[in-house]
Amino acid sequence: MTGEPHCHEAQIRVRYAETDQMGVVYHANYLVWMEVGRVEYCRSIGLRYKDMETEESTHLAVAEAGCRYLAPALYDEEVVVKTWVGEIHSRMIVFRYELRNLETEKVLATGFTKHVFVGRDLKPKKLPPRYWAAFGLTPQSKTAVTMGISGGGQRGAQP
Amino acid sequence: MTGEPHCHEAQIRVRYAETDQMGVVYHANYLVWMEVGRVEYCRSIGLRYKDMETEESTHLAVAEAGCRYLAPALYDEEVVVKTWVGEIHSRMIVFRYELRNLETEKVLATGFTKHVFVGRDLKPKKLPPRYWAAFGLTPQSKTAVTMGISGGGQRGAQP
Amino acid sequence: MTGEPHCHEAQIRVRYAETDQMGVVYHANYLVWMEVGRVEYCRSIGLRYKDMETEESTHLAVAEAGCRYLAPALYDEEVVVKTWVGEIHSRMIVFRYELRNLETEKVLATGFTKHVFVGRDLKPKKLPPRYWAAFGLTPQSKTAVTMGISGGGQRGAQP
Amino acid sequence: MTGEPHCHEAQIRVRYAETDQMGVVYHANYLVWMEVGRVEYCRSIGLRYKDMETEESTHLAVAEAGCRYLAPALYDEEVVVKTWVGEIHSRMIVFRYELRNLETEKVLATGFTKHVFVGRDLKPKKLPPRYWAAFGLTPQSKTAVTMGISGGGQRGAQP
Repeated sequence: MTGEPHCHEAQIRVRYAETDQMGVVYHANYLVWMEVGRVEYCRSIGLRYKDMETEESTHLAVAEAGCRYLAPALYDEEVVVKTWVGEIHSRMIVFRYELRNLETEKVLATGFTKHVFVGRDLKPKKLPPRYWAAFGLTPQSKTAVTMGISGGGQRGAQP
Repeated sequence: MTGEPHCHEAQIRVRYAETDQMGVVYHANYLVWMEVGRVEYCRSIGLRYKDMETEESTHLAVAEAGCRYLAPALYDEEVVVKTWVGEIHSRMIVFRYELRNLETEKVLATGFTKHVFVGRDLKPKKLPPRYWAAFGLTPQSKTAVTMGISGGGQRGAQP
Repeated sequence: MTGEPHCHEAQIRVRYAETDQMGVVYHANYLVWMEVGRVEYCRSIGLRYKDMETEESTHLAVAEAGCRYLAPALYDEEVVVKTWVGEIHSRMIVFRYELRNLETEKVLATGFTKHVFVGRDLKPKKLPPRYWAAFGLTPQSKTAVTMGISGGGQRGAQP
Repeated sequence: MTGEPHCHEAQIRVRYAETDQMGVVYHANYLVWMEVGRVEYCRSIGLRYKDMETEESTHLAVAEAGCRYLAPALYDEEVVVKTWVGEIHSRMIVFRYELRNLETEKVLATGFTKHVFVGRDLKPKKLPPRYWAAFGLTPQSKTAVTMGISGGGQRGAQP
């Protein structure tokens, strides 16, 4: 995979329900917004995640998630969720995200989610071949894109 | 800091509201459970987080969070949230978590949250001295506990 | 049905995630607490709702819900969810709730949820006979318990 | 107030996070969607709810809410939240909602929320005069719009 990966930008507006008594968005909701970004990313490459589940019994089980919170998101703000694929092979996919305020362009958070493809029984399976092309995956693909949270936040995890 | 750190185990029961149509707990809810673990950890060392907010205007803003999902949590299961402090100094604290099924003892997830101490205005501040002892923090403390997700999941983050 | 109905009191502690920027619990979360009350009510009469779903493919689909908010619930408070059956027959059940602060005994809210029994296909069905006794339902039962929110709040709904 | 009241239609797409293991949207989330409808209704008449809170310290505390669930909402569906004012006077407002599937036009739910105007201290107050015109409220207004859930669902509440 060379050059800039395909990105998609979804847009959400912060709901009151998503705030907490600190007056900002409760941090767990960023993972929900990443879900919105991921689903819209899939739609942008011609895949409807709902169909993956119902037609091919293929689910993206979350194996890992991480988020760095850089600035608080506030009620009623419009937030852009930029999403791209950080890594993919036949058994897993890593989505990466950058969330920013639509108006000020201030980056609110960066994050990633790593998923394994599983069947209805939650057992790992390969991504059905019909979806490979959309994700730019070929039988020869050997992707090695980094998947940690950008910016060195995971330094401590190094051996 | 030597020896085993103080741990606290909180217990929750999975709510129907927390499941999704994959038939398992939606992944963002693990961060909410970590909040429960964190608050109960504080209570176990004599601190009521609510009082920190109201009496000392000290909030724990989440700066980073990560979670590795090892096994699905299911509706109505009882889950133990084991919480301990991975790192602390006057301006930040890292909590680490291990979630397991109460009955089977199967580990469901591991994770961490990194917080900075902020005031009501969300500006960084130092942890008020009255809380230092409870967290085992002394003016001489220089902690250097790793804070990444255990198990090497963040390898990709290395430069 | 004569005399006081069986009641069950479940207890929850308000999570930070459940608050909003008004500094109180976001109102939709009361419905989640009612779910906790309902499930624990069932457990108190010997029924595990999870088993109803998996063993008998019987689900309680929510057909209607209502809540009157009398006092705000605050972060870290312990809340008692008192639950009882307001009405039941073979095809539907109404649960009623009273939520109060554990410490002050102040009533925070009253509400109800009306459910129809449905199968895995979401089609209406009768409550399987094995559960009838636990709910005090007999083939002769003709319950006529009122199901609106107590206190006259629904006056406007009259024709 | 004569003729049809002003209505606004907001649109949301069902998130995976909003589903539960029954494979449909968890019922409490409809209240969150009503919030979206209400906020967009306000925007449509020139009011930004955020500003009401920050500039006039006027909050809409929920005093009562009700919802009738007519058909399940499914993942990834687009839902239209039709919102209008059912009743208003200087101290309270009732919003009414109809939720329908965008594509099929099937009505999913109807509901209402009743709010009292409160200050930052959560004490009741009058709606500041600067907002009266937008809501069609005049010093002479005496509204008497019904506020129950339409369709007779509250019959049991009659004395």
